[in-house]
Amino acid sequence: MTDRESWQLCCPVILEDNFERIQLAHGEGARASRRLIEEVILPRFGPAREFSDAASVDTSVGRLAIATDSHTVSPLFFPGGDIGTLSIYGTVNDLAVSGAVPRWLTLSLIIEEGLPVRVLERILDSAAQAAVECAVEVVTGDTKVVPRGAADGLFVNTTGIGELVASAPAGPSAVREGDQVIVSGPIGSHGIAVLCARGQFAFETTPVSDSASVLHSVRALLNAAGDNVRCVRDATRGGVSAVLHEWAAVAECTFELTDAYVPVTDDVRGACELLGLDPLYVANEGTFVVTVAPDAAAEALAALRGVSQSHEAAIIGTVRARGICPVTSIRALGTAQPVDEPSGAPLPRIC
Amino acid sequence: MTDRESWQLCCPVILEDNFERIQLAHGEGARASRRLIEEVILPRFGPAREFSDAASVDTSVGRLAIATDSHTVSPLFFPGGDIGTLSIYGTVNDLAVSGAVPRWLTLSLIIEEGLPVRVLERILDSAAQAAVECAVEVVTGDTKVVPRGAADGLFVNTTGIGELVASAPAGPSAVREGDQVIVSGPIGSHGIAVLCARGQFAFETTPVSDSASVLHSVRALLNAAGDNVRCVRDATRGGVSAVLHEWAAVAECTFELTDAYVPVTDDVRGACELLGLDPLYVANEGTFVVTVAPDAAAEALAALRGVSQSHEAAIIGTVRARGICPVTSIRALGTAQPVDEPSGAPLPRIC
Repeated sequence: MTDRESWQLCCPVILEDNFERIQLAHGEGARASRRLIEEVILPRFGPAREFSDAASVDTSVGRLAIATDSHTVSPLFFPGGDIGTLSIYGTVNDLAVSGAVPRWLTLSLIIEEGLPVRVLERILDSAAQAAVECAVEVVTGDTKVVPRGAADGLFVNTTGIGELVASAPAGPSAVREGDQVIVSGPIGSHGIAVLCARGQFAFETTPVSDSASVLHSVRALLNAAGDNVRCVRDATRGGVSAVLHEWAAVAECTFELTDAYVPVTDDVRGACELLGLDPLYVANEGTFVVTVAPDAAAEALAALRGVSQSHEAAIIGTVRARGICPVTSIRALGTAQPVDEPSGAPLPRIC
Repeated sequence: MTDRESWQLCCPVILEDNFERIQLAHGEGARASRRLIEEVILPRFGPAREFSDAASVDTSVGRLAIATDSHTVSPLFFPGGDIGTLSIYGTVNDLAVSGAVPRWLTLSLIIEEGLPVRVLERILDSAAQAAVECAVEVVTGDTKVVPRGAADGLFVNTTGIGELVASAPAGPSAVREGDQVIVSGPIGSHGIAVLCARGQFAFETTPVSDSASVLHSVRALLNAAGDNVRCVRDATRGGVSAVLHEWAAVAECTFELTDAYVPVTDDVRGACELLGLDPLYVANEGTFVVTVAPDAAAEALAALRGVSQSHEAAIIGTVRARGICPVTSIRALGTAQPVDEPSGAPLPRIC
């Protein structure tokens, strides 16, 4: 046993200079914490900003939108993203679909003791890059470290504050018979990408997550169709089906989809068929659903297709008077079949 | 085996009607999630408020303070509080010591599968009561459920937004030689209370956590001493020592404490002596440190003592020109001894 090893055995708490893996001391608000924050976290989010108890910001408008999301995705890395990008885009998207301009984010980490610091650094790099891309500022944060086994790797909470500069979509209560339903792109890729990343399945081509900011697409949509946009929602957990069921419950209508119009990539469709999943229930992280007045549907679609992130947007259905089922889909044979509300998710821990 | 049992074995995902323990389905954004939110969470935080993707709020001022904190305390309940009260007070206090009026909170839960729902309900009840007491509104939230073993019971993130209506304390760079150091009450009780709640130690009298809102005390302080208040900080992880070390690093001064002036209750002192801990390093959750100009110290102290939460406030030291050590304490024999910066914490997972 070297001197250093024996010293480590005596003093496990103050080991932070062995800075390869996260240790409990990194979460305890003292010197090791300060080092983690100053050396690993702050440099990625701008040296001007101190992670003090509370950050202060100036807002130019009086109306704010606030969203929060804790991310527990497993594994931490997947084709098309990681928990860092997911945490930024997820909260930015929640603000964007509410019609807000995302401005400030908080970033709170719950780290399992033993996480390699280079893994954390890679994730923070992704997060920082995504924040720059979305023009949001990470203004404050928090770091907790829990002992091995008390958390699984890393959980990340982001809370976002946006400014409501223009009028936001009215919401599902404004939905009317005849309104058109649009999705901003092919559905189901995030859930399938995460599932594949777990290594339990091997497909010839691995689907890539759609994890991305929807800011530009939503802005283009609202600029083009304005007040004719009834509601917008990113179709995360529970997929498109969960969004439509929530809206149908408020609007007391039936959303009638046409199966053939729903965009699904070949690899996602193939994986779903093998696994017995319906893409309508699978989570997305950069794809959203819109209900829009019939007159504005073509304009809305064109606006979405003009943005690369949503160039495969499609009209997938129509709002009908409330029938027996809140959501139906016209399948291949031309008959409308119920799309049940998902109860649980087929795929846990996808975000 | 009953029919119900066999059905449960076949369909573990849609078991949410057996609503005694949290199941994975409660975190998946679909029907079970909706039920958890509508039946368990929303009723406690006001039915008027929907937990939509983003809440919108109106602010009457242009300058905001933002704070975030993830709470991982173990165990979830301890003498004087639980993770629910801690989550509200923790973030409210971060805003309060920044001179802000806390207005809105987000509440994000990471729940381990299997947590009894009545435990969650008890915690949410505490949190809701604490929010009412602090006059903050919980405006939006998020719920994730992770499989057994992937998290330890429950983690709670709260992010708070406050309005900066008056001028905030200038911060540690304003600290000058001769300034007085005040603590708002006896120190170290939170850390010791949590430690005792783990059941590893049994003392004759169990210390009770100081977990509480510091809003009224900070307001009284700022009203009484105004611009003469240099800086305020709640002494959470790392205790009073961590706060003074942070300030000393910025102010390039030495904080000289007098050991005999530092208020510590008999039960905390007794427990610390037995465990070999110094109360200066033990976490507080409702006790804060102030540095104030010498002329305003008496007034500041009187104002703090006029509020029940801080009626045992005391002047504990003086700011000196920078000596060898950033923080020293005059011990019983009259000699100043160094108070080291804590590296890690003696007590992990206390908040």
